[in-house]
Amino acid sequence: MKNLFFASLILFAFSTVAKAQQLKSPEGKFVMEFSLQNDGTPTYNLKYKNKEVVKTSKLGLELKDDKKSLLNDFTVVDTKTSTFDETWKPVWGEVDHIRNHYNELAVTLNQKGTDRQIVIRFRLFDDGLGFRYEFPAQKNLTYFVIKEERSQFAMTGDHTAFWIPGDYDTQEYDYTKSKLSEIRGLSQKAYTANVSQRSFSPTGVQTSLMLKTADGIYINLHEAALIDYSCMHLNLDDKNLVFESWLTPDAKGDKGHMQAPNHSPWRTIIVSDDAREILASKMTYNLNDPSKIENTSWIKPVKYVGVWWEMITGKSTWSYTNDYPTVQLGVTDFAKAKPNGTHGANNANVKKYIDFAAANGFDAVLVEGWNEGWEDWFGHSKDYVFDFLTPYPDFDVKGLHEYAKSKGVKIIMHHETSGSVRNYERHMDAAYKFMNDNGYDAVKSGYVGDILPRGENHYSQWIVNHYQYAIEKAADYKIMVNAHEAVRPTGIARTYPNLIGNEAARGTEYQAFGGSKSNHVTVLPFTRLIGGPMDYTPGIFEMDISKMNPDNKSHVNSTIANQLALYVTMYSPLQMAADTPENYNRFPDAFQFIKDVAVDWSESKYIEAEPGDFITVARKAKGTNNWFVGNVNGETPRTSNIDFSFLEKGKKYTATIYADAKDAHYKTNPQAYTIKKIVVTNKSKLSQFSAPGGGYAISIIETK
Amino acid sequence: MKNLFFASLILFAFSTVAKAQQLKSPEGKFVMEFSLQNDGTPTYNLKYKNKEVVKTSKLGLELKDDKKSLLNDFTVVDTKTSTFDETWKPVWGEVDHIRNHYNELAVTLNQKGTDRQIVIRFRLFDDGLGFRYEFPAQKNLTYFVIKEERSQFAMTGDHTAFWIPGDYDTQEYDYTKSKLSEIRGLSQKAYTANVSQRSFSPTGVQTSLMLKTADGIYINLHEAALIDYSCMHLNLDDKNLVFESWLTPDAKGDKGHMQAPNHSPWRTIIVSDDAREILASKMTYNLNDPSKIENTSWIKPVKYVGVWWEMITGKSTWSYTNDYPTVQLGVTDFAKAKPNGTHGANNANVKKYIDFAAANGFDAVLVEGWNEGWEDWFGHSKDYVFDFLTPYPDFDVKGLHEYAKSKGVKIIMHHETSGSVRNYERHMDAAYKFMNDNGYDAVKSGYVGDILPRGENHYSQWIVNHYQYAIEKAADYKIMVNAHEAVRPTGIARTYPNLIGNEAARGTEYQAFGGSKSNHVTVLPFTRLIGGPMDYTPGIFEMDISKMNPDNKSHVNSTIANQLALYVTMYSPLQMAADTPENYNRFPDAFQFIKDVAVDWSESKYIEAEPGDFITVARKAKGTNNWFVGNVNGETPRTSNIDFSFLEKGKKYTATIYADAKDAHYKTNPQAYTIKKIVVTNKSKLSQFSAPGGGYAISIIETK
Repeated sequence: MKNLFFASLILFAFSTVAKAQQLKSPEGKFVMEFSLQNDGTPTYNLKYKNKEVVKTSKLGLELKDDKKSLLNDFTVVDTKTSTFDETWKPVWGEVDHIRNHYNELAVTLNQKGTDRQIVIRFRLFDDGLGFRYEFPAQKNLTYFVIKEERSQFAMTGDHTAFWIPGDYDTQEYDYTKSKLSEIRGLSQKAYTANVSQRSFSPTGVQTSLMLKTADGIYINLHEAALIDYSCMHLNLDDKNLVFESWLTPDAKGDKGHMQAPNHSPWRTIIVSDDAREILASKMTYNLNDPSKIENTSWIKPVKYVGVWWEMITGKSTWSYTNDYPTVQLGVTDFAKAKPNGTHGANNANVKKYIDFAAANGFDAVLVEGWNEGWEDWFGHSKDYVFDFLTPYPDFDVKGLHEYAKSKGVKIIMHHETSGSVRNYERHMDAAYKFMNDNGYDAVKSGYVGDILPRGENHYSQWIVNHYQYAIEKAADYKIMVNAHEAVRPTGIARTYPNLIGNEAARGTEYQAFGGSKSNHVTVLPFTRLIGGPMDYTPGIFEMDISKMNPDNKSHVNSTIANQLALYVTMYSPLQMAADTPENYNRFPDAFQFIKDVAVDWSESKYIEAEPGDFITVARKAKGTNNWFVGNVNGETPRTSNIDFSFLEKGKKYTATIYADAKDAHYKTNPQAYTIKKIVVTNKSKLSQFSAPGGGYAISIIETK
Repeated sequence: MKNLFFASLILFAFSTVAKAQQLKSPEGKFVMEFSLQNDGTPTYNLKYKNKEVVKTSKLGLELKDDKKSLLNDFTVVDTKTSTFDETWKPVWGEVDHIRNHYNELAVTLNQKGTDRQIVIRFRLFDDGLGFRYEFPAQKNLTYFVIKEERSQFAMTGDHTAFWIPGDYDTQEYDYTKSKLSEIRGLSQKAYTANVSQRSFSPTGVQTSLMLKTADGIYINLHEAALIDYSCMHLNLDDKNLVFESWLTPDAKGDKGHMQAPNHSPWRTIIVSDDAREILASKMTYNLNDPSKIENTSWIKPVKYVGVWWEMITGKSTWSYTNDYPTVQLGVTDFAKAKPNGTHGANNANVKKYIDFAAANGFDAVLVEGWNEGWEDWFGHSKDYVFDFLTPYPDFDVKGLHEYAKSKGVKIIMHHETSGSVRNYERHMDAAYKFMNDNGYDAVKSGYVGDILPRGENHYSQWIVNHYQYAIEKAADYKIMVNAHEAVRPTGIARTYPNLIGNEAARGTEYQAFGGSKSNHVTVLPFTRLIGGPMDYTPGIFEMDISKMNPDNKSHVNSTIANQLALYVTMYSPLQMAADTPENYNRFPDAFQFIKDVAVDWSESKYIEAEPGDFITVARKAKGTNNWFVGNVNGETPRTSNIDFSFLEKGKKYTATIYADAKDAHYKTNPQAYTIKKIVVTNKSKLSQFSAPGGGYAISIIETK
């Protein structure tokens, strides 16, 4: 009784505070307003340059098996505003310093009847808004289960969206461009087949979601700092054009197990009337904690080749033998098996890639299919599928390490888990130690297929927790991680910069699985890349996959110039030259750009951008005065008009322009390119043609 | 087409083989008959001394998402019979050598239409039958999912059963004695509350199930060698009195993920017309593989005391502080917390137990509640609940280790997982290494509460796999395991003798939680102990729990003499003296038996036995000529008539008889006992009274 009485007193004392609270961004571009509805439901709205971009939207969480959800009956007991301004230096990045400048409003809410408190924290930047739920330590809110998060994003109109269907298990879809009202009708067509997938709603979409209003405002919805929480999708109420958070469930259908004190990830809304500012935004990183790795000297950008595309296209195989219907690690004797003759990761072939890497200045060679288990690795819900330690008989771990080392090249480890997450965790320490012992400092991990423990999803809290565990443990071993099929990144590479790459979207491999839309790469930087770099594996020169494997009729929907531009437009500290040495040797002049292009930058200038249509960016290679420009183009042929004012005044540069030939076309004439050299200064201008699905790449080297 | 034609040929060629196949046990006590029904359904029946004990019963497995289950349409393509006879020496046990003698029939079956083969292997001993399913390597049966195993045990009448309700999460029930036809009506009453439980059927029961026929034949149904398979329950068709296997499902409801080549555990039927032979049977161990641990010198029986009963009764606590509504490892600063003053695992108290152990010849002291996390360890589905490394501020790991070592005593580690299995596996290597570093060679592990990953059950394949993982990894670190709340044992201690104990039944702790039936310990050796030793934690001398904790009104339904007898009747290489030093010091004469009794044996003679009523056993202490006798009695007062013919001829012994006083009673007068010494030879006879819930214990020491 005593406690109850005290709680009532608090409610009374502060009930007059429950009026609207305004928050302005530092330069005043944005105004966010928080208020409580009559029934005590928290809401917010957002204005950009005096225009509403998010209408009044509800906030809260529905709880499971709790006397009351955290949805309404709230009163404001405290509000705190503050300003933050710092500049930090990323270990790697598009730029060498990032300003983190925001005004903050923290609203403490008390719930009538339960005496529970939550804090909703808003950070308003000049590129957008982040907010999250915080659950302070308290007696009446300790452990709770989230049935659903109910964060709304109420749209102001029937915007154009670039979306992929909501899915608990895959992000590997082509983007659909449509009005919000058209999503329902198009969702089935957009939900193309994948090896592990689970949709949940005909109006469910994934983040980061790119939107454009009729009056030309670009809005990006995503999340930041997704750690030990379920990954958020958005479900559209297409009558009212309101998006609402839709978390990924666990095996029992629950959406989050929480223990106070803790908090949700940030929900992010990046807004601009200039599409280039969406690409340049660092808000997602800024909402993550600073690096928790103190000594980051071992984290280095990597340009690499790999024994990979030949397996993806079906020219060679990951597996070593065709002798057995199934294999069992430690039981099946591979030394006695008959080799299938198609195994890609054999000593001779790996040495060929090492030689090629060394000859062309690459840092590393990725080798997939090196370890026992690939004969039946997929689709069987197999628990003990790999041990991450035992090579096939034709892969000499120590010998190849020595050979690579003698050539100044690293080998990149590959840990395919086949979704068998417990098995990976059981072997993780030994596997990382094996890497330390054998000179590997980076791992590509993979989560192809349905997750084990069975019933869990790729993006549920339990598995999100695993990806994080793998990153943090890798850091203990000074190992860089490039996780494929893991949850989409949300800027945690700021906190753990050893996460140098992720897939988490439809990568180049789909060009060998039937092809991706020709404008795919003009969308990805607006969506997938908002959360962090993608191991997109560009650099395909042979677009007719039947040249690799007669049985594979897939076509790469891209020109060679477009492939070159990707090294600049698809920012990543980890860049692959994905095609084979043979194919590169056929086009040595074009390949020169891949050899030259940097993988780490001090400055980036987005010159032109329109999602789905084109992106042009110029980047300055870190520690040099050299610049690299990339342009990727959508379906429509187009001419860029760019000026070189970003160059240093008074300096002269040699620009080498790798461009589509006039008759180039991603489908009919993808290998038609031109290369020309010109001298440029910061006064130069250039009109440059890009073909459908094409683009151009320019290296700009200071003349000394 | 070629393959199909070949398959048809095989079927035709062997179809005449499909008649009944008989198998006899070595001495001819048993006859098992295998046959196929007209529709190709495999069946078996079992006769004991020419009487049918299992009527014709179907065998097979229902598969999920498969074109056809493995239930019928089989033809016999091969039968193989063989004989096996070996004698092996267990590392620890009731006896120092075990004969493993059986006749075997392996029936290879081919399924029409699918061309899949399975083998049903029968091993017929002179104490019963074991059979299992084997899935050889083959093209058409590689990976498959079990929807349900369909192994029947068709009873010949409405037998008396000693049963506990089927449950996916707990085995901690009192036994109900009833006719089979009465199970349905009694099941709700039998399903008493537990912290984690999930029943599945009103006629579902657990193994090992003890049955008695109207004509005095004892039948025990259980399983052997449960490894990487779901734990079996039995569901009764109570119209036809047919038991059928009912496996424990995973989070998705599936009951087994299989990869050929592999096999099921053994299904066991132990039968005798003499109840003592059921207790003496070693069939369950014999169906397990020989030890996989080559050097077993570090595995030693243990008699121990522990900082435990005081927490169980509520006299002290596992937790260190009451300051926080929740705690977070690595965040909560326990050094700054206010101690609650009730923490049991404090240095002074632990030293008291070490002193007591040293003074009374115990090998070790178990200490629970030593590590951070007990403030909110239970009932929250908490993932990171313990790290198994970090002691509370008042527990000095190194200091206590040195102190214990100086007294010749070990400390037993405690790893409570709170069911958070992933968390335990993540910390397991470090936790075992910590044990190695700090002089611990045995661990009591616990799985209290619902399992994480959520949706899994205590006995599903995924978690059975974990228990095995923990045992095998412990063996790598030369650590002995005593797992509580883990799956019931099935004889795997033969293969991994470092598994020196399990709980997996209703232990002594329930005497402080409201009490167990007074005849509970006359049932357990017929049921729970069939699969391996139980850490029953006997030796309670103070039956009025309110003497420990005024708020706890529980009563221990047992006499002191009964408690002493348990050290002999409840065979285990791990025996606790569970009461407190204070309580033992009040009864030093009775305590003498606990000090004297052995924990490892060369011979065991079951003198009298009737489930639910009484058990009397004599055991010879390994490496000596001393014997110890134990008798436990049920509800009815009774007098044993035993002779000492098991003693060596011509030798004289001093027998000290610890017995119930005439007016002793488990409820009204539990502490009334008498002690007398007599001289015995192998010609001696003794009539010895046992009170309700009582018994007696005799030490028989050779006079030299």
